Amino acid sequence: MEGNGIKKVLIANRGEIAVRIIRACKELGIKTVAAYSEEDKDALSTTLADESICIGGAPAKDSYLNIPNIISACDVTGADSIHPGVGFLSEDPKFARICKECGINFIGPNSETISMMGDKARAKKIMKSLNVPIIPGSDGEIDSLEDAIKIANNIGYPVMLKASFGGGGKGIRVVNNDDELKKEYYVSKLESKACFESEKIYIEKIIKAPKHIEFQIMADQYGNVVHLGERDCSMQRNNQKVIEESPCNYISDELRKEIGEVAIKVAKEVGYVNAGTVEFLLDNKNNYYFMEMNTRIQVEHPITESITSIDLVKEQIMVAGGRKLSFTQDDINLRGHAIECRINAENPSNGFKPCSGKIYTLIFPGGAGIRIDSSAYSNCTISPYYDSMIAKIIAYGRDRNESIQRMRRALGELKLEGIITNIEFQTWLLEQKEFLNGSYNTEFLSNKLVGMNGFVK
Amino acid sequence: MEGNGIKKVLIANRGEIAVRIIRACKELGIKTVAAYSEEDKDALSTTLADESICIGGAPAKDSYLNIPNIISACDVTGADSIHPGVGFLSEDPKFARICKECGINFIGPNSETISMMGDKARAKKIMKSLNVPIIPGSDGEIDSLEDAIKIANNIGYPVMLKASFGGGGKGIRVVNNDDELKKEYYVSKLESKACFESEKIYIEKIIKAPKHIEFQIMADQYGNVVHLGERDCSMQRNNQKVIEESPCNYISDELRKEIGEVAIKVAKEVGYVNAGTVEFLLDNKNNYYFMEMNTRIQVEHPITESITSIDLVKEQIMVAGGRKLSFTQDDINLRGHAIECRINAENPSNGFKPCSGKIYTLIFPGGAGIRIDSSAYSNCTISPYYDSMIAKIIAYGRDRNESIQRMRRALGELKLEGIITNIEFQTWLLEQKEFLNGSYNTEFLSNKLVGMNGFVK
Repeated sequence: MEGNGIKKVLIANRGEIAVRIIRACKELGIKTVAAYSEEDKDALSTTLADESICIGGAPAKDSYLNIPNIISACDVTGADSIHPGVGFLSEDPKFARICKECGINFIGPNSETISMMGDKARAKKIMKSLNVPIIPGSDGEIDSLEDAIKIANNIGYPVMLKASFGGGGKGIRVVNNDDELKKEYYVSKLESKACFESEKIYIEKIIKAPKHIEFQIMADQYGNVVHLGERDCSMQRNNQKVIEESPCNYISDELRKEIGEVAIKVAKEVGYVNAGTVEFLLDNKNNYYFMEMNTRIQVEHPITESITSIDLVKEQIMVAGGRKLSFTQDDINLRGHAIECRINAENPSNGFKPCSGKIYTLIFPGGAGIRIDSSAYSNCTISPYYDSMIAKIIAYGRDRNESIQRMRRALGELKLEGIITNIEFQTWLLEQKEFLNGSYNTEFLSNKLVGMNGFVK
Repeated sequence: MEGNGIKKVLIANRGEIAVRIIRACKELGIKTVAAYSEEDKDALSTTLADESICIGGAPAKDSYLNIPNIISACDVTGADSIHPGVGFLSEDPKFARICKECGINFIGPNSETISMMGDKARAKKIMKSLNVPIIPGSDGEIDSLEDAIKIANNIGYPVMLKASFGGGGKGIRVVNNDDELKKEYYVSKLESKACFESEKIYIEKIIKAPKHIEFQIMADQYGNVVHLGERDCSMQRNNQKVIEESPCNYISDELRKEIGEVAIKVAKEVGYVNAGTVEFLLDNKNNYYFMEMNTRIQVEHPITESITSIDLVKEQIMVAGGRKLSFTQDDINLRGHAIECRINAENPSNGFKPCSGKIYTLIFPGGAGIRIDSSAYSNCTISPYYDSMIAKIIAYGRDRNESIQRMRRALGELKLEGIITNIEFQTWLLEQKEFLNGSYNTEFLSNKLVGMNGFVK
């Protein structure tokens, strides 16, 4: 694979995902520019990239969310493309549009697709029109409290109020009856406005104790769409993923084929290009419901890479450069099992409060089946300004049992001194019987932690 | 997989292979004892193992080669098994025999098999009787100078004089005519005596510019033998491997099947149990000749693990504990391509002289496809007493090109400050056209380096 049209990529992101993208570019022989905030001047990504350029102050709004600065940085460095990574501007249709208008190749789907899928209520309507099973709820956004009450009673409590443009688990309220709905309706709209610059909200029935299953798809500009199997991301705390695995041991080959084809249909119908993830809830009767589509690479993409041998980030870049997909559906054979643990700088014993400071000693685990994606190193400083995730450990094995054993071994080996992390919490999670037998669902962790101010072993 | 009979393994080795074995034991839930020399008291293996015990002074003869001390260490710690690793006592039939006599499970083949294969001349005779192609030469050891001259003239110069009990590239002399043979005959015997405690030598014709190909086999106690494909170990300097890859791109599926079956036949005929490697030379007409069999795990085993998803060290332990092989020949599907670079503390610009000292900064590469096997870390000290290899970097990719690109990327990322290493030399090797097109043979590197006092870029 050659870099075709793409010669120099500016990475509009930080941390491990910036390092991940630089690695992909290096393997493709493409030059890289690390765009960094003042806080990140000593980051690993700035060292590894061919060039680096400061795009503003520590707060994300001054740098990683500052579109004019990022566009200027491309101009100054001559970067022809931007990889937005995850979070920040990765799902901002305005950013994708401005890139295009400035003649910069945005490595991701086009602005219209991001916009369409970013409006969760609108996306659900599209899915309904495609006969994709959706979670019962409002037909798009809700117009009034009266409508909300009518719909909630129609589908039955408990229901969720969700921000149409929400994401990352934010902007979600659970209500159990009319009174709670009346109380939360306006609060929810205000919160949505504050977080996502839109007060649009919609209603969804709560699927009890579901699995969160997501299908990875890759699509090129020529209408080729392939799915790469699913990830089970049901281990969540406050709607934030903690552990992910692939494949999901509750999904048979037949069901994988069926949902995978649905994911492909969705992508084809909306003219999707680049990497994307179609998320579903799976109830305890193996019914699946479309939840949303994420129009970017995801944090948990390495587990899919491990079992397919496909490099998704390189594929993103190639597809954005005009190449056809380097594989067909027949080339995708899931082999073995992979688990990812997110290592966060946070204190599980104190409400999972984020921690920051200097890491004095850091020795990562290694050996068979272990992949490390991180931007941390001995003597680096973890900033309080950004997300608390400091490393991802990915354990691959011949089967689920081996990948679990490897992850436990790897966590035991990981030596990190100087700041508090969730390593012990992750180790404890891997010992829980619901994890070991694979039966855990999205409610598991909140039920486990209920009544605790965080995690007490 | 459970640990069955084996409960506690003493690792009679050091460095990365000791760490490798500890990792395998941890994944199997088996306790570990790191046996260490005084020089290695702060080694990573002593930290990672459940227990550690000093077995003597820094020189290997006082510790890692000191059989009474090692056996005593088992006694003191209650270890029921010993993993010998590579080098040191791993191919010493006496050690395997003493372990057995002391009721300790030696994780490897039995003493008789080690002895049989350790006598290279005898092994060749056995191969001849099995109709396995062997390199033309003496029929076993040579008895006199007169015989040697007769045989050399018969098969044609140039020939090699080789120590029957040699290994690791030592005890080999090339002679081009009768005069040289006369001169080197007694020198060779003396050297053999000095290095391997036996003056037995044998003669082999020199195969011009061959590939060094080795087949990994695994065998259990019930007669099941499986081969796991080949490794191309032709990138050698002074008969020491520098880069290894699997599969070899000069071997077709048909040829792999044919040689693989030969390797299995060899193992079955000698009643082989545990991991072993059958080494062949491959000439430029794709004729293969049995060279020798290594009766232990090999340094380069991770590349085979990468493309088969089989954990060879765990399999060694399970088989030694009486388990059947966990896979059949049909389960072995080679997927993708893997390359290993040995990172040595040595100075390529000064005759590859070993270096020692403190590593101040060490940041290993990570990300997709990269595996690190090492016992080094920031602020560790590299001892002058032992082998100079400090890390193995293994790059896996969908195909050969991707694994090369990943290895180049990984070497570029590797940050190691404090001592001189061969990182730049390895990077240069990966750029050579003979490596890139895969045509290099065992003579490539010595031809490249001829006339230089080591490597000058």
